Amino acid sequence: MKSYHLDPGRGLAGLTVQDHAEPEPGRGQVVVRMRAGALGFRDLLVLADDYPLPIRPGVVPGCEGAGEVVAVGEDVSRVKPGDRVAATVFPRWLDGPFRRENAAQLGTMIDGMLTEYAVLSEDGVVPIPEHLSFQEAAALPLAAVTAWNALTSGGAPLAGETVLTLGSGAVSLFTLQFAKLAGARVIVTTSSAAKAARLRELGADEVIDYRENPEWSEDVRGLTDGVGAHRVIDATGPLEQSLKSVAPSGEVAFVGYWLSGTKGARPVDPATFFGAGAVLRRIATGSRAHFLELNRAVTAHRLRPVIDRVFPFDRVPGAFAYCEAGGGFGKVIISHG
Amino acid sequence: MKSYHLDPGRGLAGLTVQDHAEPEPGRGQVVVRMRAGALGFRDLLVLADDYPLPIRPGVVPGCEGAGEVVAVGEDVSRVKPGDRVAATVFPRWLDGPFRRENAAQLGTMIDGMLTEYAVLSEDGVVPIPEHLSFQEAAALPLAAVTAWNALTSGGAPLAGETVLTLGSGAVSLFTLQFAKLAGARVIVTTSSAAKAARLRELGADEVIDYRENPEWSEDVRGLTDGVGAHRVIDATGPLEQSLKSVAPSGEVAFVGYWLSGTKGARPVDPATFFGAGAVLRRIATGSRAHFLELNRAVTAHRLRPVIDRVFPFDRVPGAFAYCEAGGGFGKVIISHG
Amino acid sequence: MKSYHLDPGRGLAGLTVQDHAEPEPGRGQVVVRMRAGALGFRDLLVLADDYPLPIRPGVVPGCEGAGEVVAVGEDVSRVKPGDRVAATVFPRWLDGPFRRENAAQLGTMIDGMLTEYAVLSEDGVVPIPEHLSFQEAAALPLAAVTAWNALTSGGAPLAGETVLTLGSGAVSLFTLQFAKLAGARVIVTTSSAAKAARLRELGADEVIDYRENPEWSEDVRGLTDGVGAHRVIDATGPLEQSLKSVAPSGEVAFVGYWLSGTKGARPVDPATFFGAGAVLRRIATGSRAHFLELNRAVTAHRLRPVIDRVFPFDRVPGAFAYCEAGGGFGKVIISHG
Amino acid sequence: MKSYHLDPGRGLAGLTVQDHAEPEPGRGQVVVRMRAGALGFRDLLVLADDYPLPIRPGVVPGCEGAGEVVAVGEDVSRVKPGDRVAATVFPRWLDGPFRRENAAQLGTMIDGMLTEYAVLSEDGVVPIPEHLSFQEAAALPLAAVTAWNALTSGGAPLAGETVLTLGSGAVSLFTLQFAKLAGARVIVTTSSAAKAARLRELGADEVIDYRENPEWSEDVRGLTDGVGAHRVIDATGPLEQSLKSVAPSGEVAFVGYWLSGTKGARPVDPATFFGAGAVLRRIATGSRAHFLELNRAVTAHRLRPVIDRVFPFDRVPGAFAYCEAGGGFGKVIISHG
Repeated sequence: MKSYHLDPGRGLAGLTVQDHAEPEPGRGQVVVRMRAGALGFRDLLVLADDYPLPIRPGVVPGCEGAGEVVAVGEDVSRVKPGDRVAATVFPRWLDGPFRRENAAQLGTMIDGMLTEYAVLSEDGVVPIPEHLSFQEAAALPLAAVTAWNALTSGGAPLAGETVLTLGSGAVSLFTLQFAKLAGARVIVTTSSAAKAARLRELGADEVIDYRENPEWSEDVRGLTDGVGAHRVIDATGPLEQSLKSVAPSGEVAFVGYWLSGTKGARPVDPATFFGAGAVLRRIATGSRAHFLELNRAVTAHRLRPVIDRVFPFDRVPGAFAYCEAGGGFGKVIISHG
Repeated sequence: MKSYHLDPGRGLAGLTVQDHAEPEPGRGQVVVRMRAGALGFRDLLVLADDYPLPIRPGVVPGCEGAGEVVAVGEDVSRVKPGDRVAATVFPRWLDGPFRRENAAQLGTMIDGMLTEYAVLSEDGVVPIPEHLSFQEAAALPLAAVTAWNALTSGGAPLAGETVLTLGSGAVSLFTLQFAKLAGARVIVTTSSAAKAARLRELGADEVIDYRENPEWSEDVRGLTDGVGAHRVIDATGPLEQSLKSVAPSGEVAFVGYWLSGTKGARPVDPATFFGAGAVLRRIATGSRAHFLELNRAVTAHRLRPVIDRVFPFDRVPGAFAYCEAGGGFGKVIISHG
Repeated sequence: MKSYHLDPGRGLAGLTVQDHAEPEPGRGQVVVRMRAGALGFRDLLVLADDYPLPIRPGVVPGCEGAGEVVAVGEDVSRVKPGDRVAATVFPRWLDGPFRRENAAQLGTMIDGMLTEYAVLSEDGVVPIPEHLSFQEAAALPLAAVTAWNALTSGGAPLAGETVLTLGSGAVSLFTLQFAKLAGARVIVTTSSAAKAARLRELGADEVIDYRENPEWSEDVRGLTDGVGAHRVIDATGPLEQSLKSVAPSGEVAFVGYWLSGTKGARPVDPATFFGAGAVLRRIATGSRAHFLELNRAVTAHRLRPVIDRVFPFDRVPGAFAYCEAGGGFGKVIISHG
Repeated sequence: MKSYHLDPGRGLAGLTVQDHAEPEPGRGQVVVRMRAGALGFRDLLVLADDYPLPIRPGVVPGCEGAGEVVAVGEDVSRVKPGDRVAATVFPRWLDGPFRRENAAQLGTMIDGMLTEYAVLSEDGVVPIPEHLSFQEAAALPLAAVTAWNALTSGGAPLAGETVLTLGSGAVSLFTLQFAKLAGARVIVTTSSAAKAARLRELGADEVIDYRENPEWSEDVRGLTDGVGAHRVIDATGPLEQSLKSVAPSGEVAFVGYWLSGTKGARPVDPATFFGAGAVLRRIATGSRAHFLELNRAVTAHRLRPVIDRVFPFDRVPGAFAYCEAGGGFGKVIISHG
């Protein structure tokens, strides 16, 4: 079986394919035959060694994937061979708030998803909603879990509240979809009429073109009787505009778009934060419990993720190049055929 | 102007109409020309002096109503003449949890809504959603606020969670409507095929006929893979079945149907509560903040309350008799024409 | 090495000692050389097969213990040989609310602590506070974790709030100690002057003799200007008195004293619950996160648990008999010498 | 009776004393004969018109004060003549989160406390703890309420958690005192050995001299095994150091020291916030409910605020000058003799 491996900091040149024997599960582990994976901005940062966590040389990259359980080790009770599962990005973060002891993450310090067979702990996989294909399921572990965590960790939004989400990246699309399920009014920012149209199709109540007004928080105020949005999910910045868009006693969930030093996120005046009168919450993916919760919502509403394009497993480098070029709408999927 | 007044404990015989001068607002107060009121089970208990709070002899009964501000006192800033408003049942419970210092309630210790002109504090009224008539707005202050409080005080339900609500009383109908807005899957219990059909029209995903199986918690388990409902809103009992229906770490919101001693609510074995593994939360109406929140949801979704029947103001006794007979579906409204 | 094993339902007659080879840890597991264990009411129920969970025949009983890590399996990163650790009662309940998938419990379905060497998952052990002996550490896993969960799951009590705890069982003693750390005023019920004196030594602000007034909730009201206790931790009942003792919008944490059918807990009228105007929360031990939190508090305040009596490992049956006789004050400890 | 009045933007030159008739209470109002007031940094900003809220010309300045109720208007039930009370800074913010409709604040838009007789709503006063003098009670409304809100709005700190508070301003001193009541370990930053000694007397477990290391977050990490402080109460900045001091999933409560543009608070890189992995919560004073809660804690523990210096009512300008000079330790009090 084949796996991609990474020599971090060399970009695509650092990506190699190696052959391995099919793995055996240890106690508490499962072996998953991968059927689909997914790539995104985070993985580009990992390739560039521009990610805020250490990358183990030779690691299998990729933190999103879905497949079929083909073997289970001793003491495994949560899944069985044949089960369709998706992996959780932080295999030890099962529930509750993020804690340092659960920081191990797929695709950086521990082997990730760009492989034909993955060995995972039984706690580190969750069942796939029945109506989803493997490719659709592979779209969930990073962006959907992040969006769910961002929307719910400060308490689920109330029906009728206004949720503002920034841009049409994968986190923002899931935020839009989940916020509509929760009965929120959703405002999305974007930069093109074409994307605006697609956002409206997905349920956006209002779309703001942030290129028309760099101070687009004014538009948010205009659309909310001056109150602002009760929740802002900020996965692209600028954070200053998010803080100027949020309602008093509201919350900005901050999803670390700035991770790349090259993006040069603008610093924020503490006065802007004080003036917002809100809570600013850092969000970094989420737990197994978040994933199970969102799967329940996805199942109940037969929601489907937006997929941009599918690349075969042997064309992962091409998929990375496509991601780097930007401009897509939805997740970039890797298929094992 | 005319008001109904109550000599408690005498039933309808204790209800009289008196003539008064049109009232003047004091500092911080508003005068509302009532356009609609509402009656329900709670008001029958008050008439019978079978309510757990003391009733001031001669009080104006009724705790639900909507109308138009016709005069405002000194220092009033929240409303102005001409505003369409509904009254809050606890005029001093503005926000946060219920506290004893805010226990004054319309229609028991302080004058209520069965009057042509009511004097209320400016904090004790909230604006009416634009798309609602006065009659519809009068349906909200008691049952809708209770349902909203019951659904949200332990945190809003997550999209995809299961909400169980009991019966087709007004609190249950609003719970159904609000839970659907929040993306929940909703199970409702009822006792007739006709009501079941109407509940489904309102969005119920599942309807259980509790007469077919007095141990209907078994049906709830059957509909939820054995997990139970994440939230149970219990406004009719029996509480034991609610506790047997709730998921581990879920919540039963208990809305005091037992208020009438005549209903003879069955006692609950502490072991049943322990076995439920859940939180049991007492709900008694809600605050101004709850009312403002639900109005925002009602407005955003252009939701309309279910109205059963409308009686003119001079036929309040007939409305009471109609309530007492039972069997309706939706709120009983009093109209000032 | 020796272990006790249980044939449930036969009481002490069902308890046997067997010899085993020293165990090896699997992947993710540790072997702990037990240095101390503890017994209590819960273990008597297990012996009697009067516990609400199924008991695996032949299981090693006991859910509380502390010892030294002597071997670690593959992939273990949280502890190392030589570490002093205590076991968590629910080895898979790591954080967040209780969930069914984490229901496995030491000493009922999976082997427990009455052994010389235990094999545990690395997640299922926590470090012991430095200032505690193994015997003191063995006092914590059940009662202290339960008390901590009971006091904090609805939010930590505020300094100045009143906490009522019932009786001088182990959960109540820890509740008293933890509530004092949190700055609460603590009221304890008891039945003897001797125990009252010891409770006061531990910090109780008020002690109520529940034998003098079976309606002792009246005494609680008397001591709180009629308000009631903001938090009631009820590990002995009667629940009705707890509900009559709690402040409006307060919380009763209910710890399942009724588990023994023989105790005949009195049923509760739903009206009593409604009148309490509070939240009733079911508590069943707690998570690894609770244990880590309480260890931090125990460490910071150099708090020591109350130990009643210590029995050597070969006198476990005598320890059970001592527990059954009742009347102690503090934990009954098993020492490995 | 005499009141100070303010022509904002002119500093002390804008402060005048005027004579008035003794006021009468309107409906729902009380007249308080002021016995003590307090001044601080906030009032200097108001004088300089450097406060982020509009100042009504001619307003009575000062937002902290305590006195005796001498008259009550119609419908007043919460207090009676003779009661010792303190005023709440936001008279309409009774409970729950801050909302725009409750933004009216003493001493800026509505008349404040630097007067001999104040007219206040009955909701806008709270009883004074019995063991406190009027001067001590006047120290509470701004700084103590802020500290309480900052410590408890994200949930009370758990016993054993680490609280970091910055400097020896009034908010920080109350934070230290309240956090110790809650069983926290408290770290305080300061700049002088003399203040360090006083902070230790008040209970500080650790004191860091921020002048010795501008990157004093390193010292916080050093004192917490690298974890950081679970709660940071930041009333002086720099916010960047607070964010670098907080534990993952912890909270920084941000109290707006930057209010003066002249202080030039350093902007914060969003990456620093992301790296903190925490919640950042804006705190602006607090509600009536916060004040009642802290009074309960102050009463239970017979806690006393730290008073720096007392000025007579006719020497308010001198008190302002003293505040401006800085360097004090505790509240500056105005006494009516």
